[in-house]
Amino acid sequence: MSEILYGKNVALNLKEDMKKNIENLKKKNIIPKVAIIRIGEKSDDIAYEKSIIKNCTNLGVNTETYKLEKSVSQNEMLNLIDKLNKDTEVNGILVFRPFPKHLDQELINSSISAKKDIDCMNPLNLEKIFEGKLDGFMPCTAEAVVEMLKYYNINLEGSNVVIINRSMVVGKPLSMMLLSHNATVTICHSKTKKLSSITKNADIVVTAVGKAKMIDEEYFSKDSVVIDVSINVDDNGKLCGDIDYDSVYGKVKAITPVPRGVGSVTTTLLIKNIVDGCIKQNI
Amino acid sequence: MSEILYGKNVALNLKEDMKKNIENLKKKNIIPKVAIIRIGEKSDDIAYEKSIIKNCTNLGVNTETYKLEKSVSQNEMLNLIDKLNKDTEVNGILVFRPFPKHLDQELINSSISAKKDIDCMNPLNLEKIFEGKLDGFMPCTAEAVVEMLKYYNINLEGSNVVIINRSMVVGKPLSMMLLSHNATVTICHSKTKKLSSITKNADIVVTAVGKAKMIDEEYFSKDSVVIDVSINVDDNGKLCGDIDYDSVYGKVKAITPVPRGVGSVTTTLLIKNIVDGCIKQNI
Repeated sequence: MSEILYGKNVALNLKEDMKKNIENLKKKNIIPKVAIIRIGEKSDDIAYEKSIIKNCTNLGVNTETYKLEKSVSQNEMLNLIDKLNKDTEVNGILVFRPFPKHLDQELINSSISAKKDIDCMNPLNLEKIFEGKLDGFMPCTAEAVVEMLKYYNINLEGSNVVIINRSMVVGKPLSMMLLSHNATVTICHSKTKKLSSITKNADIVVTAVGKAKMIDEEYFSKDSVVIDVSINVDDNGKLCGDIDYDSVYGKVKAITPVPRGVGSVTTTLLIKNIVDGCIKQNI
Repeated sequence: MSEILYGKNVALNLKEDMKKNIENLKKKNIIPKVAIIRIGEKSDDIAYEKSIIKNCTNLGVNTETYKLEKSVSQNEMLNLIDKLNKDTEVNGILVFRPFPKHLDQELINSSISAKKDIDCMNPLNLEKIFEGKLDGFMPCTAEAVVEMLKYYNINLEGSNVVIINRSMVVGKPLSMMLLSHNATVTICHSKTKKLSSITKNADIVVTAVGKAKMIDEEYFSKDSVVIDVSINVDDNGKLCGDIDYDSVYGKVKAITPVPRGVGSVTTTLLIKNIVDGCIKQNI
């Protein structure tokens, strides 16, 4: 038997706190609001946008969407962000990534007010995480992993955690966050040799590779806790993670399913960031 | 036999390039200059200052020192840094750390122009390292480790590197720099369990613990490359590293001595940062 770490329970728990915060804001006639900036008409972006708006509406968070042409100019982007930075009714700004290549991503990231940067794109917010200061905005996927581990009482202090990902949205911030929780952290990637012998010795393995079912039972021990961040599509068109779930389930201590795992927590944390931002901006 | 990795050779090699750059600047009537800000009269600081001035003078880099009272106010500090930021003759600003507690370290770090931030205190420069962008200023000790490994042709790609330190001047920036060189990186610290079994499996071990001779041969294999960053004082008042050198020498592939190891490279890199900053500011 492996414990199945569903994301839903974690998300519900987070939402309970959030609802109280939203109610308290309402008493002061404040309703949190997020501004979403979408460039172009990518189906992934549209689906993500819909899911955010639905979740926000259910919780009582206002949304406004800015749909920009793919040809939007650098100045138009910067002017819009500047307007939203100054708008006291907007508490969070979310810009879908990646941007079209003619836009300067670095410049745009820095232009988002650090106080409204709910998706943690501003380098000042990222640097805080590098320093281990976890009281600001964090990339939601990395934060979701930590929330999952905390919710299921999985010990971090002194644990060996292996992360297979070195991106700025998952692996790198997550490694710093786990260090702050006193875990010993190993960061692996495509150039890592003998990956399975490294993961086999870990207490916790977090994967965000993006290859359907590439990781099987050979990578784990019976004491492994396995957190699968990826959402891939398998040969039959079904959603799956990096882990070959059917091969691994039953042979490890605990495992997240895909779907219904980490992904369920990520959007909730994005909304939590809007609400937390709203509270800080209205103290 | 273990190969002894002396810092001197690495420093000399770096100085060769630096001398050429300084000569080229001289042809344009430009002499690189660093402003050193020292608060109070700590003997460590005074020794470090002397060593920097001596090294700068030998290479033809100008220095100017600002000696401030321990009671210096926040505003005096910020005004001085602002003046130096604007002074086109000053190419690098070095403020000795740590500061007296009444000063806001974060605010002062951010106030140093990112272009003159030769000791990598500004969060914008640190965040670049977090992202793996290694074309800017880097903390000199972390950079010295990378330069040592590169000079002695120690392969990084796919190698397992264990770092025993998680500070913002060594462990964290070094881990990001090594990731950019495609190493697999493990970050250990005081809460790490079974440290010796982790280091024993590594290709390269970097220690910056600050405890004289705490690490003996049990931590390594015959193929280990051992980089000792610490400079401690042993029971007999002699300088030594974290490694019990006499126990380990001969039983590993390569090892840095203390003194005459990494420390010899660090100051050289600080001066290199002044010169590189000067070049960029005068393009």
